[in-house]
Amino acid sequence: MDIALLGGTGDIGEALALRLAYDTTHSIRVGSRDAERAEAKAEEYLNELDSRGLDPDLTGHANAEAAVDADVVVLAVPAYHLADTIEAVADGLSGVLVTPAVGMKRDDDGLHYNPPGAGSVTALARDAAPDDIPVVGAFHNLPAGRLADLDSTFEWDTVVIGDDGDAKRTVMDIAEGIEGLRALDGGGVANAGEVEAITPLLVNLASENEGLHGLGARFQ
Amino acid sequence: MDIALLGGTGDIGEALALRLAYDTTHSIRVGSRDAERAEAKAEEYLNELDSRGLDPDLTGHANAEAAVDADVVVLAVPAYHLADTIEAVADGLSGVLVTPAVGMKRDDDGLHYNPPGAGSVTALARDAAPDDIPVVGAFHNLPAGRLADLDSTFEWDTVVIGDDGDAKRTVMDIAEGIEGLRALDGGGVANAGEVEAITPLLVNLASENEGLHGLGARFQ
Repeated sequence: MDIALLGGTGDIGEALALRLAYDTTHSIRVGSRDAERAEAKAEEYLNELDSRGLDPDLTGHANAEAAVDADVVVLAVPAYHLADTIEAVADGLSGVLVTPAVGMKRDDDGLHYNPPGAGSVTALARDAAPDDIPVVGAFHNLPAGRLADLDSTFEWDTVVIGDDGDAKRTVMDIAEGIEGLRALDGGGVANAGEVEAITPLLVNLASENEGLHGLGARFQ
Repeated sequence: MDIALLGGTGDIGEALALRLAYDTTHSIRVGSRDAERAEAKAEEYLNELDSRGLDPDLTGHANAEAAVDADVVVLAVPAYHLADTIEAVADGLSGVLVTPAVGMKRDDDGLHYNPPGAGSVTALARDAAPDDIPVVGAFHNLPAGRLADLDSTFEWDTVVIGDDGDAKRTVMDIAEGIEGLRALDGGGVANAGEVEAITPLLVNLASENEGLHGLGARFQ
């Protein structure tokens, strides 16, 4: 499958690029607003994978080019860039749009979930996407640093959210290709808020409890 | 320690009564609005524990009587009964008040977090409690059925929330007395919403994913 990671040079984009290239045989397109930066980061990821004896199909592109005709387009950009990133690539979209972004704000007590007016970032992405493009929320609660460290092992869940069952299944299958990651069906987009809200909790737990860092969640 | 479980005849109250009596040496007071019902349920719990060779210090009382001078008072009542339950027992309170309640509403998509105007149920309890009584949020995301089944084993976390560090530590120590339960510090009451919101997510995951039921969360 052709998977485009828009914002694939950022933390969670890098983590997904490395893990998907390491654990699966999908074609990975690393996207950035700046094509040269995307190419440089793709080169960096390839070097890392080459040092582990892998030669994956992984390339760097401008976001719009990465998105064209991809089976799955992951919006690995901050929540406040979501709508304009979708608008910038909308013409070339034909597959499933995936959003891992979470809206958060920090105050004296810690990090808090800060949903947009649409109710959740997943709902915001759905509203911003072309009508015929299914939107799926996934990969929300994964610590980018540990995910990007290919020596790290874990047992985490990703809760996958969406109103289109086939699109959701496609994304769940991709997620389960990552070793140690289990994909759970979280229901429709209306259920996204409770999933997105876990991310600030994980950050708070890591900062409040000695010895815990880079936390994911397992539901058992 | 003397632990009063107000609403100790309900699902989560029963689960905490059985587990605390099974795994710890605390004195457990089962409270109910109806003293006779509390006594009958306490008898039922004692029979269950007796069948496992245990003779714990566990008794049934009217809520107000159970709460008097208890070291810890757990408000195992629905969120909408929280404020009036606190009011009914306020005169006898001297220890730590613990709230495991979560506000939820169901719609066509599933169960959703439905925080009260105070921002979270924990904040609502804090606002309703006498000023000198510390309020701690804990035991939010535990499935009552599996917790009450003493043959069941698990590895779950409970995130403990509160603005009084000593009170929080007391509750964390009690929680860790339950085998398989790890208590994590979630920070202050302002962080409670993200913790409480996990409960509807756990219910949705159990209903959307075959083979999963009675889910708790582990952060790792």
